[in-house]
Amino acid sequence: MVERTRIRSDIAWSTPDRIVVRGRELTTDIIGTVDLGGMAFLTLTGRLPDADEARLFNAIAVTLVEHGITPSVIAARMTYMGAPEAMQAAVGAGLAGLGSVFVGSIEGVARYVQEGLAAKGEHTIAEVAAAIVSEHRAAKRPVPGIGHNQHKGGDPRVPRLFQIARECGLAASEIALVEEVAAAAEKATGRSLPINATGAIGAIAAGLGIPWKAARGIGVMARAIGLVGHLLEEAGNPIAYEIWQRAEDEAGAHLRPKD
Amino acid sequence: MVERTRIRSDIAWSTPDRIVVRGRELTTDIIGTVDLGGMAFLTLTGRLPDADEARLFNAIAVTLVEHGITPSVIAARMTYMGAPEAMQAAVGAGLAGLGSVFVGSIEGVARYVQEGLAAKGEHTIAEVAAAIVSEHRAAKRPVPGIGHNQHKGGDPRVPRLFQIARECGLAASEIALVEEVAAAAEKATGRSLPINATGAIGAIAAGLGIPWKAARGIGVMARAIGLVGHLLEEAGNPIAYEIWQRAEDEAGAHLRPKD
Amino acid sequence: MVERTRIRSDIAWSTPDRIVVRGRELTTDIIGTVDLGGMAFLTLTGRLPDADEARLFNAIAVTLVEHGITPSVIAARMTYMGAPEAMQAAVGAGLAGLGSVFVGSIEGVARYVQEGLAAKGEHTIAEVAAAIVSEHRAAKRPVPGIGHNQHKGGDPRVPRLFQIARECGLAASEIALVEEVAAAAEKATGRSLPINATGAIGAIAAGLGIPWKAARGIGVMARAIGLVGHLLEEAGNPIAYEIWQRAEDEAGAHLRPKD
Amino acid sequence: MVERTRIRSDIAWSTPDRIVVRGRELTTDIIGTVDLGGMAFLTLTGRLPDADEARLFNAIAVTLVEHGITPSVIAARMTYMGAPEAMQAAVGAGLAGLGSVFVGSIEGVARYVQEGLAAKGEHTIAEVAAAIVSEHRAAKRPVPGIGHNQHKGGDPRVPRLFQIARECGLAASEIALVEEVAAAAEKATGRSLPINATGAIGAIAAGLGIPWKAARGIGVMARAIGLVGHLLEEAGNPIAYEIWQRAEDEAGAHLRPKD
Repeated sequence: MVERTRIRSDIAWSTPDRIVVRGRELTTDIIGTVDLGGMAFLTLTGRLPDADEARLFNAIAVTLVEHGITPSVIAARMTYMGAPEAMQAAVGAGLAGLGSVFVGSIEGVARYVQEGLAAKGEHTIAEVAAAIVSEHRAAKRPVPGIGHNQHKGGDPRVPRLFQIARECGLAASEIALVEEVAAAAEKATGRSLPINATGAIGAIAAGLGIPWKAARGIGVMARAIGLVGHLLEEAGNPIAYEIWQRAEDEAGAHLRPKD
Repeated sequence: MVERTRIRSDIAWSTPDRIVVRGRELTTDIIGTVDLGGMAFLTLTGRLPDADEARLFNAIAVTLVEHGITPSVIAARMTYMGAPEAMQAAVGAGLAGLGSVFVGSIEGVARYVQEGLAAKGEHTIAEVAAAIVSEHRAAKRPVPGIGHNQHKGGDPRVPRLFQIARECGLAASEIALVEEVAAAAEKATGRSLPINATGAIGAIAAGLGIPWKAARGIGVMARAIGLVGHLLEEAGNPIAYEIWQRAEDEAGAHLRPKD
Repeated sequence: MVERTRIRSDIAWSTPDRIVVRGRELTTDIIGTVDLGGMAFLTLTGRLPDADEARLFNAIAVTLVEHGITPSVIAARMTYMGAPEAMQAAVGAGLAGLGSVFVGSIEGVARYVQEGLAAKGEHTIAEVAAAIVSEHRAAKRPVPGIGHNQHKGGDPRVPRLFQIARECGLAASEIALVEEVAAAAEKATGRSLPINATGAIGAIAAGLGIPWKAARGIGVMARAIGLVGHLLEEAGNPIAYEIWQRAEDEAGAHLRPKD
Repeated sequence: MVERTRIRSDIAWSTPDRIVVRGRELTTDIIGTVDLGGMAFLTLTGRLPDADEARLFNAIAVTLVEHGITPSVIAARMTYMGAPEAMQAAVGAGLAGLGSVFVGSIEGVARYVQEGLAAKGEHTIAEVAAAIVSEHRAAKRPVPGIGHNQHKGGDPRVPRLFQIARECGLAASEIALVEEVAAAAEKATGRSLPINATGAIGAIAAGLGIPWKAARGIGVMARAIGLVGHLLEEAGNPIAYEIWQRAEDEAGAHLRPKD
């Protein structure tokens, strides 16, 4: 018999009369005491938030719940149309698309912020920011977290999130760094590159001590909530069928014989 | 050209300078104001909870976040081992198993509670409960929400959740009905069939006005949070590889030639 | 220590110098000898097909590979747009929708065919068919496998599949039963209810000895192949972005302020 | 109204009486004529294989179908245990883990082979191989496709696949390049680094003209077939429950109070 590595997990355990999660008795120290945002924070960081951390974390989490009809939502609704008996799989299908293109960029911001500040040493924030922009430009990679997509005049979520961070006295260095990154990138490119919601959320997540590798998880949790809402709407007021029919008709129109 | 059905969704919309979710301005009426539990409640019911509803909803939601090493967790960790670059797909894989066997039973409880109370008329709660038990027995289907799995002496989560519901003045009829269902089932079978966590959560969800078709969604949202936590642990302290190796070795042992 | 159930799987095993799949040496008895259709048949039935079985099985399998822009394809393409680094997860998301509404009906047909013929006894095929139709009508459930969707004049795949089955000398009783089911349903309803592709495939799968519980698996395998093709096309000639933009614009149009 | 991009797909189209896939009439030119391996090849390359190509493609495809109890299989079986009504979602969950760690390496091999040969110019195969090894070593990335995992004495699939390629007169340059890569890597490291199955399959896929971006798709298709087989076995002879119970017990053992 091969010597085996032990399997261990420190997240939770139970016996017939006790359930303990992250070292806390579920029935007395979590249920009725910790709310869903606190539980999510605990999951991401291993500790419960204080009041300011809870407020700021909830602010970024609720920002991520709902974005209207996204690719992820369309994937979930299409899946639900074919398998309404498996709503959980439709949510799973919707989550699968939260990769590098959308939610992954939060991770990218949190990473350069955490790594940049960790290696700051005697440098100024502006110098760190300039280095981040230079590295991305040298590698011909876009700097995540800046630039506008839909919100040409600046994303309205950004000042609100930064205001709450200030009120909570949190994430000041991280936000300052992203602001300097945006300034440095604008200077380097001559283009308008305001901080977008991804940049604000990535900076705040970093400032809350959420490891950058976990930052994508905030989006995944939040969107799972939003996707459930879309499937409930799809159940009562379906749109997937119509989206499908139009796409199918048009996609093959150039191939079908004309009457 | 075929006349087309209009596509519409009432969940959210945006313009370059505004984002509105469920009729509320995201930046002023949600971010900084609504927490993640409130957002989840809004998603499931279309309205924000009051303080008591928020406390009770958070109580059932956090109960569902974490159950230690479940089949869903193992699926997510196995997926992450093969595709660590796609954490979101590992969460999606984990959610896909939240079907009829586990989380689906919350839905079953919420359904018989909502349908039973809706059709109650002049009958007593005990009569409604007796009818529910009879129907399940006639169809040879187990009554969901009662009976013990691991917690032989009674699930410790149940009295705690019921206590909070009482403190909040919510879900009294729904809880009474599940209690009568358990009593009727014990009488009919002669076996000990205490209310389990699924039964308590299903009754409370029904009492919070969450449609039974949406009840599974509470589990899906909550477990998405828990799964992210397990993947973060897997990244630092992996167990999937060892579980895999042991299973592979043992599963084929009867077929491999002996040395 | 609790006494443990042994884990065993009879599908495959390996040692450092041998790999054995379903009792066959992979390198000498499968690679170069068995083709993908034969391998799929082996997976579904536990045995290799003879030449006629292989031809007929391949006929139904290739029929299921490609249906153009389906809901499943749209889900996969949406997922790929957000996570192009995880093509496998996009295929997985696409498969998740192959539930009761679409591919599940093959299973329904295979089931009533296998159960109907197993219980036939002294009855004629027509009597078995009449009973199947009556049972579905009594339960107010549609009879799967009959009725036209797109192909109003009869699905062109059906006569072709039945022709191949005749040439192969296979599935005669099963096809006869589905034909009688269609006739009985038309008589009972007064509507035109020709056998559709699902009905033909379900009957043939049953006739090939594929257990009805496995019949959905034919569709799942086949569509996995088709989905890979769609993702390759999406990589070069994307359509998901445009489908998304149109849906998002239109879905919220009734809510957005008019300029 | 914004000017819209047209949506088009060239894969398939249908009218009420015709279905055309990749420019071929489904009923007359595919069903009964093309087998599943040919259909998969068509999906990956846009053309049907000749007899040699079909034999070699089928050889690599069937090699990938079945690997016994893999992480992907465990994920699928765990998902099926919780949601047996959604077998397709269990296959989807299993596929989601076919990422960079396992199946992704086929893609890596196909890529360096295709890019290396495309840029070969006047260089010898050995020089191209040396450059590939140098680049990987400079980037501190392992060279995919070489090195032994389980099969210490050399993977038995490799010589068999190469033999078939020779018999078919295909992929000679691609195989030669991988052989030179293995030799160069052994020379550079002083370690035994035989070509593994991934290396053989990646080289052959490249030699069959399958674009490297599509190479992962061969594994995804093939494993979808294998996963269906495992779920059928799980339905009759379940192992997921036992794997779960053992893992749960052991993972929390260090935390549970001793009696």
